Amino acid sequence: MIRIGLDVMGGDFAPNAVLGGVIAAQKDLPDDVTIVLIGDENAIEHYFDERNERPARYEVVHSPETIEMGDHPTKAFTKKPRSSIVMGFRLLEEGRIDAFASAGNTGAMLVGTTMTIKTIPGVIRPTIAATIPNIHTDQTILLDVGITPDSKPDVLYQYGILGSLYAKYVFKIEDPRVALLNIGEEPAKGNLVTKSAYELMKDSRQFHFVGNVEGNDFFVRDKADVVVCDGFVGNIVLKEAEALYSLAKARGIHDPFIERFNFENYGGTPILGINGNVIIAHGISNEKAIKNMLLLTLEIVKAGLTEKILKAFEY
Amino acid sequence: MIRIGLDVMGGDFAPNAVLGGVIAAQKDLPDDVTIVLIGDENAIEHYFDERNERPARYEVVHSPETIEMGDHPTKAFTKKPRSSIVMGFRLLEEGRIDAFASAGNTGAMLVGTTMTIKTIPGVIRPTIAATIPNIHTDQTILLDVGITPDSKPDVLYQYGILGSLYAKYVFKIEDPRVALLNIGEEPAKGNLVTKSAYELMKDSRQFHFVGNVEGNDFFVRDKADVVVCDGFVGNIVLKEAEALYSLAKARGIHDPFIERFNFENYGGTPILGINGNVIIAHGISNEKAIKNMLLLTLEIVKAGLTEKILKAFEY
Repeated sequence: MIRIGLDVMGGDFAPNAVLGGVIAAQKDLPDDVTIVLIGDENAIEHYFDERNERPARYEVVHSPETIEMGDHPTKAFTKKPRSSIVMGFRLLEEGRIDAFASAGNTGAMLVGTTMTIKTIPGVIRPTIAATIPNIHTDQTILLDVGITPDSKPDVLYQYGILGSLYAKYVFKIEDPRVALLNIGEEPAKGNLVTKSAYELMKDSRQFHFVGNVEGNDFFVRDKADVVVCDGFVGNIVLKEAEALYSLAKARGIHDPFIERFNFENYGGTPILGINGNVIIAHGISNEKAIKNMLLLTLEIVKAGLTEKILKAFEY
Repeated sequence: MIRIGLDVMGGDFAPNAVLGGVIAAQKDLPDDVTIVLIGDENAIEHYFDERNERPARYEVVHSPETIEMGDHPTKAFTKKPRSSIVMGFRLLEEGRIDAFASAGNTGAMLVGTTMTIKTIPGVIRPTIAATIPNIHTDQTILLDVGITPDSKPDVLYQYGILGSLYAKYVFKIEDPRVALLNIGEEPAKGNLVTKSAYELMKDSRQFHFVGNVEGNDFFVRDKADVVVCDGFVGNIVLKEAEALYSLAKARGIHDPFIERFNFENYGGTPILGINGNVIIAHGISNEKAIKNMLLLTLEIVKAGLTEKILKAFEY
């Protein structure tokens, strides 16, 4: 039995987009999966009544408070103990759900992690990943995309481990190729951090390092499955890919591959390197994004991703 | 009389693409412009003979050596004194040409700058800019795109001055809006360097600072004319824009605006912050790129860009 906790109140279009996403996901979820809906009970039942449709297997955990997008993450976590985010983390901590997924306030989700289940011993900084479409390899896993703007070389090295495990167990890529995002192919290229990171990575036995890749290797080249960079650069790369999609729309370009850059449909990312399965999605998530987040969450639970990461950092 | 020195031997397709570019540019160059071709005299005359066409106004300065793309920049500059790049810098230093343009070894061009005309007093680091297409403002000037991977806050601040003057005098933008590339709009967002840079920029009287922009502001949003970042991030942003074009080509997308991302046609960039007009272009430059580089060079000379920058750094 797999129990996925879902923050019904998280995201710009909550609760309707979240509940719509649950219904949309239901037919793709096996019988042994129960969605635990954490949010306002009345709003949930009202939505299902109005729609005259309910998911096959769900439970409701009533939460009378909501952490809003504008709330200060740390303060909100303390001051709103009955909010859906706080209650979700409590359920996860107590082992009553196998994963917690939310499109809510990302800062509060990170604070929740720190205040409850915590980082895996040995992991310097947890990280979040994005998938960037690639015409050869389907997608490139990019990390970090926003938690740690000033990632140091040893942190970048650990992103290599975390990204490799994520690629292997969730995306089913055998022996994932891990590359360092840089400004030249040669080892001596880069800024101070990437030059040092290259030295740490080049003889790694913990992941399959294939060297540096550059900005023009995205989308069209078959060089790596996982690309590692600091959270500042990763955020800018990801958002430039969003701008690509906006440009295509503005130009009236319709192309099924370019459609994959529509991050409104994007199913979120696990927070990698923590003692539990926590999945976060963009605030703008629509029904399809929520559905995709639930399917990704199921894959992460089934893969035992957290256990694999724990094992990699055992010493 | 304006005399533009051109490195005939620079670039992957030299000398043919360079000489073809000169002929292509000729009809757009006014009568008072002479192109000074620096390169192998025989190769030059042979090309014009074969083509049975010559530019209206040109001179040849014979150079019997060439700095290749693979040559070590510093060593090559010392060991090949009769190469087109060294001779170009000598002509510029002696005031016999008003500008020197080359699609050759970028490293050697930077070394040449340092060893001859030098950086303007007060400028911490010279910089190079790229233009990123934008549907509202025609283009966004992005700098630095590759000279200084670890640009410090005071260096970023100076990029604001240099980019603003470039936008104003060469692109004729009144009161250019200068933004800092960051991972959030709020002043407190960013890495250590951008947070400090924001503090330096926010009350600047030397340029019109409009705050932070993000990766998804490129291409489609009307927020800034000049975007400032370190050379590491700038290089990756520029190359990701190249990847956008490669993707469009791979998908068979034909769109006149997307065609502007074809950096093969791109006319190069001045090295900003040095005591002379030096323009460099991509090694892959074709005839159109060389033509565009010559037209950009003329604009830079006519605008007196170097003089404007000298004045801004007087104290």
